[in-house]
Amino acid sequence: MKLGRVSGNVVSTICNPVFDRRTLLLCDLVDERGAATGDYLIAVDTVGAGPGDTVLVLDEGNGARQVLGCKDGAVRAVIVGIVDQVD
Amino acid sequence: MKLGRVSGNVVSTICNPVFDRRTLLLCDLVDERGAATGDYLIAVDTVGAGPGDTVLVLDEGNGARQVLGCKDGAVRAVIVGIVDQVD
Amino acid sequence: MKLGRVSGNVVSTICNPVFDRRTLLLCDLVDERGAATGDYLIAVDTVGAGPGDTVLVLDEGNGARQVLGCKDGAVRAVIVGIVDQVD
Amino acid sequence: MKLGRVSGNVVSTICNPVFDRRTLLLCDLVDERGAATGDYLIAVDTVGAGPGDTVLVLDEGNGARQVLGCKDGAVRAVIVGIVDQVD
Amino acid sequence: MKLGRVSGNVVSTICNPVFDRRTLLLCDLVDERGAATGDYLIAVDTVGAGPGDTVLVLDEGNGARQVLGCKDGAVRAVIVGIVDQVD
Repeated sequence: MKLGRVSGNVVSTICNPVFDRRTLLLCDLVDERGAATGDYLIAVDTVGAGPGDTVLVLDEGNGARQVLGCKDGAVRAVIVGIVDQVD
Repeated sequence: MKLGRVSGNVVSTICNPVFDRRTLLLCDLVDERGAATGDYLIAVDTVGAGPGDTVLVLDEGNGARQVLGCKDGAVRAVIVGIVDQVD
Repeated sequence: MKLGRVSGNVVSTICNPVFDRRTLLLCDLVDERGAATGDYLIAVDTVGAGPGDTVLVLDEGNGARQVLGCKDGAVRAVIVGIVDQVD
Repeated sequence: MKLGRVSGNVVSTICNPVFDRRTLLLCDLVDERGAATGDYLIAVDTVGAGPGDTVLVLDEGNGARQVLGCKDGAVRAVIVGIVDQVD
Repeated sequence: MKLGRVSGNVVSTICNPVFDRRTLLLCDLVDERGAATGDYLIAVDTVGAGPGDTVLVLDEGNGARQVLGCKDGAVRAVIVGIVDQVD
């Protein structure tokens, strides 16, 4: 899993049911001090994260589908937690 | 998932049924501002995307096979949506 | 598998049962001489590792779920061993 | 999937049945203009590709095993097509 | 699959049965001419490889578990062959 910081929303026309009523968030990947690495992921929100939140991103299809309760979803990355502290 | 911009078609002789009547698109991977990263993926189109479109690319085999309704396909990357806006 | 060095804890609000009573550790990925590579992973501890320990990190969802005895967990990386020696 | 250019053969003693009577090809990964990226993959040939051919490489274990008709193979990358044109 | 050169052993206390009586080898990843790339993998030996051997490394969990005959192993990378020649 990696740390990300939510930097925006992605609005896309997708017909896969796994995305129904789900928010797609743009997450800048950050290092352990919170600095941007220059890379990003687009992840499905599962925790109500918003812009500026530091989040835990799981980038793995089978786990992502299980979190979303959707065996057949076209998904790979999900936000699984809001990070309170790294120490 | 990542953002891509469709930059061309790939014409290839492939005997796997998952590719029958499917278009293989060359997608430049772009950052959140739409700038090319220098990397690319070849993805199966599922949304009717064309050159210049910004798309959402899923690069994961099991999810890709599920989108294509093909349990046994030799596929890893699919275009799952056309991106209308990133903000 | 990769070598990591435990550098901290991640405190996060996560609702997935795979994380109940589990510690999430920040692991700096290191090279074979123990030097930091600049990359990191957040991994679930399974061996009682602590700060400064050199550990063996498995970064693969299906294997991670099996180690944790949890078929449906939102997890990809686990610490599977403490490294005593690399020679 | 990625574009590769076949640059050689790999001769190896492997005891896994998935490799019986299969050719292992060294594929330089190339960009969309055909220039070498400096990276490579070793892939099982399924299409009769030879040195200099531009090929479509699938680097994903489950898909590779399905192409090879071998549920239990120790394989991750296969050549799934010869590329006729990228435009 | 990638080419590696065995450069050492990893001694680790691991409780997962997939590692019982198995040797964990440190493999420097090399390019097609045998030059080190600076990256490495820790892989389970399945062929009796030793220091200095050029080997074929499979870095994929499901395939690795199948090679090891262990459906539930905490493993991702295995050495599947000793490379005799790349030409």
